[in-house]
Amino acid sequence: MDQIKALKCVLCGKEYSPGEVEYTCPACGPEGILEVLYDYELISRRISPRSLKEDPDFSIWRYKPLLPVREDSPIPPLHVGWTPLYRPRLLNEKLGFSHLFIKDEGRNPTASLKDRASAVGIVKALEKGAREVTCASTGNAASSWAGAAASVGLKSYIFVPQTAPRAKLAQLLIFGATIFPVKGSYDQAFDLCIQASSRFGWYNRNTAFNPYLVEGKKTVALEIAEQLAWKAPDKVFVSVGDGCILSGVFKGFADLLNLGWIDRFPQIIGVQAEGASPLYRAWKEGKPFEPVEPVTIADSISVGIPRNRVMALRDLKTWKGLMMTVTDDEILEAMRVLGRQSGVFGEPAGVASLAGLIKASKEGIVQKEEAVVVIISGNGLKDISSALKAVRMPEPIEPSLSSVEEYLKKATSFQ
Amino acid sequence: MDQIKALKCVLCGKEYSPGEVEYTCPACGPEGILEVLYDYELISRRISPRSLKEDPDFSIWRYKPLLPVREDSPIPPLHVGWTPLYRPRLLNEKLGFSHLFIKDEGRNPTASLKDRASAVGIVKALEKGAREVTCASTGNAASSWAGAAASVGLKSYIFVPQTAPRAKLAQLLIFGATIFPVKGSYDQAFDLCIQASSRFGWYNRNTAFNPYLVEGKKTVALEIAEQLAWKAPDKVFVSVGDGCILSGVFKGFADLLNLGWIDRFPQIIGVQAEGASPLYRAWKEGKPFEPVEPVTIADSISVGIPRNRVMALRDLKTWKGLMMTVTDDEILEAMRVLGRQSGVFGEPAGVASLAGLIKASKEGIVQKEEAVVVIISGNGLKDISSALKAVRMPEPIEPSLSSVEEYLKKATSFQ
Repeated sequence: MDQIKALKCVLCGKEYSPGEVEYTCPACGPEGILEVLYDYELISRRISPRSLKEDPDFSIWRYKPLLPVREDSPIPPLHVGWTPLYRPRLLNEKLGFSHLFIKDEGRNPTASLKDRASAVGIVKALEKGAREVTCASTGNAASSWAGAAASVGLKSYIFVPQTAPRAKLAQLLIFGATIFPVKGSYDQAFDLCIQASSRFGWYNRNTAFNPYLVEGKKTVALEIAEQLAWKAPDKVFVSVGDGCILSGVFKGFADLLNLGWIDRFPQIIGVQAEGASPLYRAWKEGKPFEPVEPVTIADSISVGIPRNRVMALRDLKTWKGLMMTVTDDEILEAMRVLGRQSGVFGEPAGVASLAGLIKASKEGIVQKEEAVVVIISGNGLKDISSALKAVRMPEPIEPSLSSVEEYLKKATSFQ
Repeated sequence: MDQIKALKCVLCGKEYSPGEVEYTCPACGPEGILEVLYDYELISRRISPRSLKEDPDFSIWRYKPLLPVREDSPIPPLHVGWTPLYRPRLLNEKLGFSHLFIKDEGRNPTASLKDRASAVGIVKALEKGAREVTCASTGNAASSWAGAAASVGLKSYIFVPQTAPRAKLAQLLIFGATIFPVKGSYDQAFDLCIQASSRFGWYNRNTAFNPYLVEGKKTVALEIAEQLAWKAPDKVFVSVGDGCILSGVFKGFADLLNLGWIDRFPQIIGVQAEGASPLYRAWKEGKPFEPVEPVTIADSISVGIPRNRVMALRDLKTWKGLMMTVTDDEILEAMRVLGRQSGVFGEPAGVASLAGLIKASKEGIVQKEEAVVVIISGNGLKDISSALKAVRMPEPIEPSLSSVEEYLKKATSFQ
């Protein structure tokens, strides 16, 4: 792993070698998240846009030299990444854009962007010789972790808030995870998982605790750039809960700028649900973060204590990113607009990004001629109850043509 | 479309040109399904394993010269096909195989194999200048059709049995379809859709009615062969409802044999749910088909009147295929085995194929050293209620380490 120069604490700045420390900075404790620093000169000799052009591996592992894993580490079998980047014509027309792109992360193996991080996490767990793994999650990280663990024969222990959507719980159980539905919030599940991991020696995937997950998440940015022929978009919209995907997107574009593969940094716009927006508030007011009691239908970003706040706020400042909030109604509207104008079905947290774009467009924060990428971070099938709030379920009809005719008349009259 | 020699009725054998007839044989009525006959010599000059090796389009459209569409027809935007073909090590070990492959069709845009047929159907609808489209479906064909229609701006009218899983209904509604939940079975929804299509002039995607859908479905066989470097597997297991995917698989391998790209035909094994097995019975007893009242948790193959029975039974005879049945319990067990040994989550109908393999293996129908492909036709997220029948949902715990310890002790004691 000579591509890694150091793991550097975001709080105290102390640097460690990868073998020296497992999760956070020993000096600063759980808030001392470590960032992976790379030797870009070395990496440049191993991978380039030219070498990628010849690479037939259309998964996140095409970027292996840019990931924090050993060169000879086996790759887990589920196919992760290289998700479609669409430029949906009808959506562009509807919203008045010409270069609006949708990155459909619901096409990953367990149907969310989190599969990118879990794949890297599993490689790290195997490098350590772990047999048991754990994480706390609002749902998506958990199901991706359990699926990836199952694919390589690791036992998984998962902590979720008991309110997690049934679809995500079903995934976990089908993948054979032992799950702990915690009577409490995601934030309580998170703390309990850290304790249990330490007590039982389970390898821990927790977001903003394990330093390697942001590295998995950054592959979405690498792909966006490559799919746009190494031309950075003007803006990228991304939904924000803990702020880890946000930092992943920053990290990916930072890598590319450091390598000289893109020539400017896109503006990254993080979108939180109004009812769960502590990062937005901290960014907006420039004040220390304050925990909130999260209330939103967007379960994957329903986070009151954003674990990656330090790194995320630093990234926003360094790279001149923006934060914004959207209401649950705006999220449901974005879900309908996306489905109807592109055939892509995103979960509420997954389309908060699009709701953000729609709002930003109205507010003049984004210009119609700009190249904009909206990351849809999870599939709508993961949370059907919320999706059904966005639509009206029609009444059943008798199996006769006259019922169809009657129904159509009614449908026309109230449309 | 000079690659098409004729559309030939499976009942009377009469041949038509593609422009001459839209759906079924005018002489035989709705049962006179038309089969697309190709000019393989011409096709051989347009596409070959060698040209495919250089083709960067990893979707079903890499096989465009082998599909019943005009060369210049625009391709709908959603990325369909080139789904992963896994050889999961743990699943192979568990079931005692060495060359067992899983084709994960849940990775398609709306999470089922049906997206292959819908993509081709949409191109045909656009070629006809249609603005409105329809279909009847147990759920998957409908959601794929509605999604594909939305992606190109066509209005969709969908007939489903009112019992269709909520996830599939949610997809339809998000995609903006007008849906008719029919008080009755899939079979009644099917008949009503044909009537409505004829009454309102909507372009009809119905299975075993529209001749082009089998052609979309066959791409799964083309991909399997290409992913195995043009070596046909020994056996392919596929779940069967109407028998259209079954005929699609036959057609794909038949195309490849006709083109000389494979040198033998794999044995195709169709698997029905015991409670919905009219095709199995007709095949087994060599008698005319008799409708049944379908009862199975596998909603996508819960079919009492298999619409493609004539073609499917003919294909089974021509190519020495087999049919078998599995119980709902065997289906739920297959769902668990697949999830736990590979990290792939299939819906009940999607894993009936694997349940079939497990049974066939016990009965000596398949040998452990054979190369076997199991098609998982849909994602488990499409039917969470059924998935939850396969697992036990644990009780919530208090957020304390002692609760975790107590829980683990209990978990160990009953495992």
